Amino acid sequence: MSKSVLSMSVSLDGYIATPDDFLGGADDERLHHWFATADSGPAKELVDAENACGAVLTGRRTAELMDHWGGDHAGNPIFVVSHRPPGPAARYFYPKVHYVTDVVTAMEQAKAAAGDRTVEVRGASVAQSALAAGVLDEIVVHQIPVLLGRGRRLFEELPAEIELEILQVVDTPEATHIRYGVKR
Amino acid sequence: MSKSVLSMSVSLDGYIATPDDFLGGADDERLHHWFATADSGPAKELVDAENACGAVLTGRRTAELMDHWGGDHAGNPIFVVSHRPPGPAARYFYPKVHYVTDVVTAMEQAKAAAGDRTVEVRGASVAQSALAAGVLDEIVVHQIPVLLGRGRRLFEELPAEIELEILQVVDTPEATHIRYGVKR
Repeated sequence: MSKSVLSMSVSLDGYIATPDDFLGGADDERLHHWFATADSGPAKELVDAENACGAVLTGRRTAELMDHWGGDHAGNPIFVVSHRPPGPAARYFYPKVHYVTDVVTAMEQAKAAAGDRTVEVRGASVAQSALAAGVLDEIVVHQIPVLLGRGRRLFEELPAEIELEILQVVDTPEATHIRYGVKR
Repeated sequence: MSKSVLSMSVSLDGYIATPDDFLGGADDERLHHWFATADSGPAKELVDAENACGAVLTGRRTAELMDHWGGDHAGNPIFVVSHRPPGPAARYFYPKVHYVTDVVTAMEQAKAAAGDRTVEVRGASVAQSALAAGVLDEIVVHQIPVLLGRGRRLFEELPAEIELEILQVVDTPEATHIRYGVKR
């Protein structure tokens, strides 16, 4: 059975990007520096698990910022949650990009497409919608030792408290990786 | 030489309290549940270190919410950062409570009073002022596996990015404790 996972690199003050969608630091990539050292061990296993997903569920803003990742994720389909119909690129070019108007239906379709692999959730807004709708199974936070000071938050407000369970902690000098299960 | 430390229990979505200054959960104490199990091991060492401080530096809102902790912290002085003069209770009752109009001077006085022990920083707003002014040395985050959904944030906005260094990670089922050094 597929599970849905949100994996995000987050500054200690809760930001996933600057206001202009950069990632901080002198090279505008601060939040992703840890990737460069995650070439072995448990941090690499987290990256590998993310890359081995069977489908992507994303919000529209993230999808459009990324040009729909070129139309698929390593050959796997992308499900975009949006009330509006897709734009021309998604309509004309990308048979594996599917626009769905609600997050619950989108997750059902994404899990069916993913089979026994995971559904990777992309985008803070749709992740919060998935949490509120009870269709997000795990959260992997790569907690980066930096305060960005401002930007786009991973979490804004939710309609109710949600209990989590700590499933795994990976302690490296570059980041503290924490995998949480979402309790139902 | 004294160092200044901010220690806070924080939900994964970055809240240190609900909008009404409760701590979440059915008993309104969710963020502090981990204390009940921190009776041994490295989590207890973190609590012990916090309790062994030599002075407290706090914001006014926190000081007043806590009635100035009765006038001292285990006999040690309390420095309140506020532009306004103290209210009657602090003026009349508490010789160990000192109101100071700026965070840099307050920290100098608190460190002098603390000697070789730590200055514990209390309150999100004053902690952000101390970070911005370059007078906060360490941050201890007790990351609690819960999403509160709304409330008072530990971090709002800062004037610039600040690099941190991961000094210690304590992995327990109840919380992920991370001690950061603030880089200068």
